[in-house]
Amino acid sequence: MIFEVLTLFPRMIEGPASESILGKAAQRGLVEVRVRDIRDHAHDKHHVTDDVPYGGGAGMVMKPEPLVEAIEAAKAAMDGPCRVVLLDPGGRTFTQAVAREYRDVGRLILVCGRYEGFDERIRSFADEELSVGDFVLTGGELAALCVVDACSRLVPGVLGNVESAGIESFEEGLLEYPQYTRPPDFRGMKVPEVLLSGDHAKIARWRRKHALLRTKEKRPDLFSRLELGKADRALLDEA
Amino acid sequence: MIFEVLTLFPRMIEGPASESILGKAAQRGLVEVRVRDIRDHAHDKHHVTDDVPYGGGAGMVMKPEPLVEAIEAAKAAMDGPCRVVLLDPGGRTFTQAVAREYRDVGRLILVCGRYEGFDERIRSFADEELSVGDFVLTGGELAALCVVDACSRLVPGVLGNVESAGIESFEEGLLEYPQYTRPPDFRGMKVPEVLLSGDHAKIARWRRKHALLRTKEKRPDLFSRLELGKADRALLDEA
Repeated sequence: MIFEVLTLFPRMIEGPASESILGKAAQRGLVEVRVRDIRDHAHDKHHVTDDVPYGGGAGMVMKPEPLVEAIEAAKAAMDGPCRVVLLDPGGRTFTQAVAREYRDVGRLILVCGRYEGFDERIRSFADEELSVGDFVLTGGELAALCVVDACSRLVPGVLGNVESAGIESFEEGLLEYPQYTRPPDFRGMKVPEVLLSGDHAKIARWRRKHALLRTKEKRPDLFSRLELGKADRALLDEA
Repeated sequence: MIFEVLTLFPRMIEGPASESILGKAAQRGLVEVRVRDIRDHAHDKHHVTDDVPYGGGAGMVMKPEPLVEAIEAAKAAMDGPCRVVLLDPGGRTFTQAVAREYRDVGRLILVCGRYEGFDERIRSFADEELSVGDFVLTGGELAALCVVDACSRLVPGVLGNVESAGIESFEEGLLEYPQYTRPPDFRGMKVPEVLLSGDHAKIARWRRKHALLRTKEKRPDLFSRLELGKADRALLDEA
């Protein structure tokens, strides 16, 4: 999968993209994270990328020319069809389903705004606008990194164990079941006995039950969208 | 405001935290982002922080001892009351209202999980669990950075212009109005004439109207929660 991130702060992207699972995926050629400095597409002497808003008001607005030129250059550099995504608090909400969709698209150009925002005319050069949540960041960079990370881990081979991507939170609309590791007794808090029993059917039942219960308690909105079978309903009745 | 981020990948935090607005806020002493390597609290020879899950299954689980010791050390190092927040997809959803709440708390310890997840017993050492959205990341680091960034920009003095934090998306439950800067004609796309008129009352009306319309179109969920006055309803009737 190829990402190209358009930003005024390349180092905000380069650091995290070279660390941990993402860095290993890049080394192994499974994921490529390109970073393009929007400033390189500003052709005046001072490489100006922002200007005061028409109509007045605080803050600066990103100019259309450098950013649109950067988008066009990024598209030209992609060796195939791609999607141009503008990170913006008003965009559609990023979810695990969107991450899967992007993974299938395979080539993403992620455009990061800064300052007060960007010139409205820039929007028509993007295929879509995306928001990671109802909070305001100083720029689109951290949102872009969340997209890169969530999509990359769905690329086959990126996670060491193929199973790991599939059984986690949201993959089925369920939160994850409680996990335990050694020691069996930590400051008086013990691991549930069933997990030490070696009885795999019993363990699977316990995990399913607690994933259902946790989702019901913590995320009633997700829970209400689940299509529960007979076995799941029986597990919930037990509790 | 003081943040301490507990992570196995300190560089994922240190890079972005030293860039852009966040970096400047730190230089000016308005915000401090401490990073604690959880591995430093693993006392065996190989600094092991994870182990296989009880009951079997793929992936590794973060052990309770090093992480809990790291939380305790971080709390002891804070010179006042603080909140311990575990980044977890099952936590309460991060929003602009939560960012304001944390800004008022002033001292945050952000705990980043990795691998399959963390030992369930760790949860009882956190004050709360927080999720940035319904997507799965390879770890809590990018979520923690979103929290640091969104909270920091609300600290007085961090944004160059005091107005900037107040009029943006979500601050009033509204998306931002369209912004324009030079040139007045970009590839045939023109800046709306009203913004060039110099009539400030007219410009304010136009901006309010388009913030309302944009919110109605793109985020009907936010729009339905607005308490619209007479003037706002009149603006919407015009459209």
